Amino acid sequence: MSKHNFDEAITLTGEYDSQTGSVSPAYQNMVGPFGGVTAATLLQSVLRHPSVKGTPTSMTMNFLGPIKEAGITVQPRMVRENRSNQHWIVEALCGDESVATATLVFASRANSWESTEITMPDVPSHTELESLTTEVLPPWVKQYDMRFVRGNPLLAPEQDAPPSETLQWISDLPERAIDFTSLCSICDAFFPRLFIHTRQMVPFGTVSFTVYFHVTQQELNELDDAWVLGHARASKFHGSYFDQTGEVWGSNGNLLATTTQLVYYKY
Amino acid sequence: MSKHNFDEAITLTGEYDSQTGSVSPAYQNMVGPFGGVTAATLLQSVLRHPSVKGTPTSMTMNFLGPIKEAGITVQPRMVRENRSNQHWIVEALCGDESVATATLVFASRANSWESTEITMPDVPSHTELESLTTEVLPPWVKQYDMRFVRGNPLLAPEQDAPPSETLQWISDLPERAIDFTSLCSICDAFFPRLFIHTRQMVPFGTVSFTVYFHVTQQELNELDDAWVLGHARASKFHGSYFDQTGEVWGSNGNLLATTTQLVYYKY
Repeated sequence: MSKHNFDEAITLTGEYDSQTGSVSPAYQNMVGPFGGVTAATLLQSVLRHPSVKGTPTSMTMNFLGPIKEAGITVQPRMVRENRSNQHWIVEALCGDESVATATLVFASRANSWESTEITMPDVPSHTELESLTTEVLPPWVKQYDMRFVRGNPLLAPEQDAPPSETLQWISDLPERAIDFTSLCSICDAFFPRLFIHTRQMVPFGTVSFTVYFHVTQQELNELDDAWVLGHARASKFHGSYFDQTGEVWGSNGNLLATTTQLVYYKY
Repeated sequence: MSKHNFDEAITLTGEYDSQTGSVSPAYQNMVGPFGGVTAATLLQSVLRHPSVKGTPTSMTMNFLGPIKEAGITVQPRMVRENRSNQHWIVEALCGDESVATATLVFASRANSWESTEITMPDVPSHTELESLTTEVLPPWVKQYDMRFVRGNPLLAPEQDAPPSETLQWISDLPERAIDFTSLCSICDAFFPRLFIHTRQMVPFGTVSFTVYFHVTQQELNELDDAWVLGHARASKFHGSYFDQTGEVWGSNGNLLATTTQLVYYKY
C-alpha cells in the first residue's frame, strides 16, 4: 500500500535535533507549500523526537517568509520539562534562512472536570452535501474533500450569513484517520477570510497561526470517521492584517481543536 | 511626578540583547507575578530595542514555570526582518532557568480596506457601574479598576448568562493612557474561566497566551479615555486544560485586540 500524500508530505529523517524534509508538490499553494502542512511538519519533528512526552496541547507557528526550496531543515529544541508538561521551540530553515518558528506545549493530561461551553453548529451530514470542485484552486486544495454549509468560495455569498464566515465539512483525500498532525493542518485549511468576505484574490500571507488541541489520542481513536466540521470567521480587517478564529469538531460532536491566525493582506 | 506602578513593573535596563527587570510587588499573583505584566515586560524588551520597526501585530507567550526570583533577564532576538515586518523571539530567565518564551510579529501597517466583523456588546458606561472590591483577591487585582457587566467573581453567577463568560470594563489604577504594553497586560487580566464557571479556587496556570493587536499607535492616541471593555469566554474544559477567547474594545467602539490562552487546571 502506498503512503498517503499527507504522510509523504510531513516525512522527516534525521536524528533528532536537525531533521530534514522535502516540500511536497501535492500540497503546493500559490507561493510555496500550504502552511498547514508546514505547521504539521514542525509538529511532526517533536512527535518523532525521542524526548517527547505527552500529547500536543498548544502550538503557535510564525511564518517568516516563503519556502522556495525543495528541502527544509527542522530543528526542535526542548526548552523546559516540568512534571506534567514540556515546552518546545522549533525553527525551520531553508539553507541558512529561517522560514518558520514554532512554540509548542506538550502535556500528560490528567482526568479532570470537563465541560464544552460552545455548541456544535447544527448542519447536514457531509453525505448530504456536494464536494467542492477544485479546477481554479491551488494544488493543496485537491488533497482535501471540502463540503460547504456556508462560505463556499465558488458560489455567490449567502444573503443572510455573516460575510466572513465559513462552515464546512472537510476530510483528507483519500480519507485518512484524524491524528494531531492532520488536525493541525486542517486548522489552516480555511480559505482566507478576506477572500470569503470580498471574493477578491489579492496577496495574502499568514504570519502567525495558533492551534489549541482539546483531545487525547484515545479520543482521536474513537472518532467515527475521517470527517471534521470546521467553522471560521474574522474579527477585524485593519491596516493590512486580519485575524481568523475557528473551531474544528469531530462528527461525533467532540470539539477537537480551536484555532486563530493573523494574516497579512494587500487590498 | 512618580512613575505609574505599571511603568515601574515593566522597566528594563541594559543594552539590548540581555535586559534586566525587577519583579514588582504591586503585581504579585497567587504564585509569582501576574502573567499579564510578565508578558508586557517581554513586549517592552522589543519595543525599546534599537532595531525594532513598526508596531506589534501578534504576540504569543508561553509560561514555562513560576517566577520565584526578584529579578528577571529578558533576551530579545530578531529572527528575521522582511520589507514590512519583523519576527522576534524573546526568552526570559531567572538565573539560568527559562521561565518564559515569546514570539512576536511587528509590522509597518499599510492603509487598506477595513472592516470589523463583530459587534461591540451594548453595555452601560463604566461610570454607571460599581468597582470590584478587592480584599480577597491577590495584589495585582488592586492595580486595576474592574467594573463588571457579567461575570463578577464576587457575586452569584447570573442565571441567564453563559457560565464561563465575563464582560467587564477595566482601566489601570490610577488611570493610564492605553498603550501596547498595557493592552497586552489587560488581555491577561480576566479571572480564570474555570473560576468563573465553577466558583472554585483550584490550582491554575496559563501555559500559552496570544494577543493580536488590531490598532495603530495613532488609534491608541485617539482613544477617549483609559477604559476598555473586555469580553471573555471558554470553549472547552478538558483533560486538565481549558482555553479562553476574548476581545478588548476601546470605549470609542474600536476593537483594539483579540486574545486567546490555554490554561492548566487541577479540578
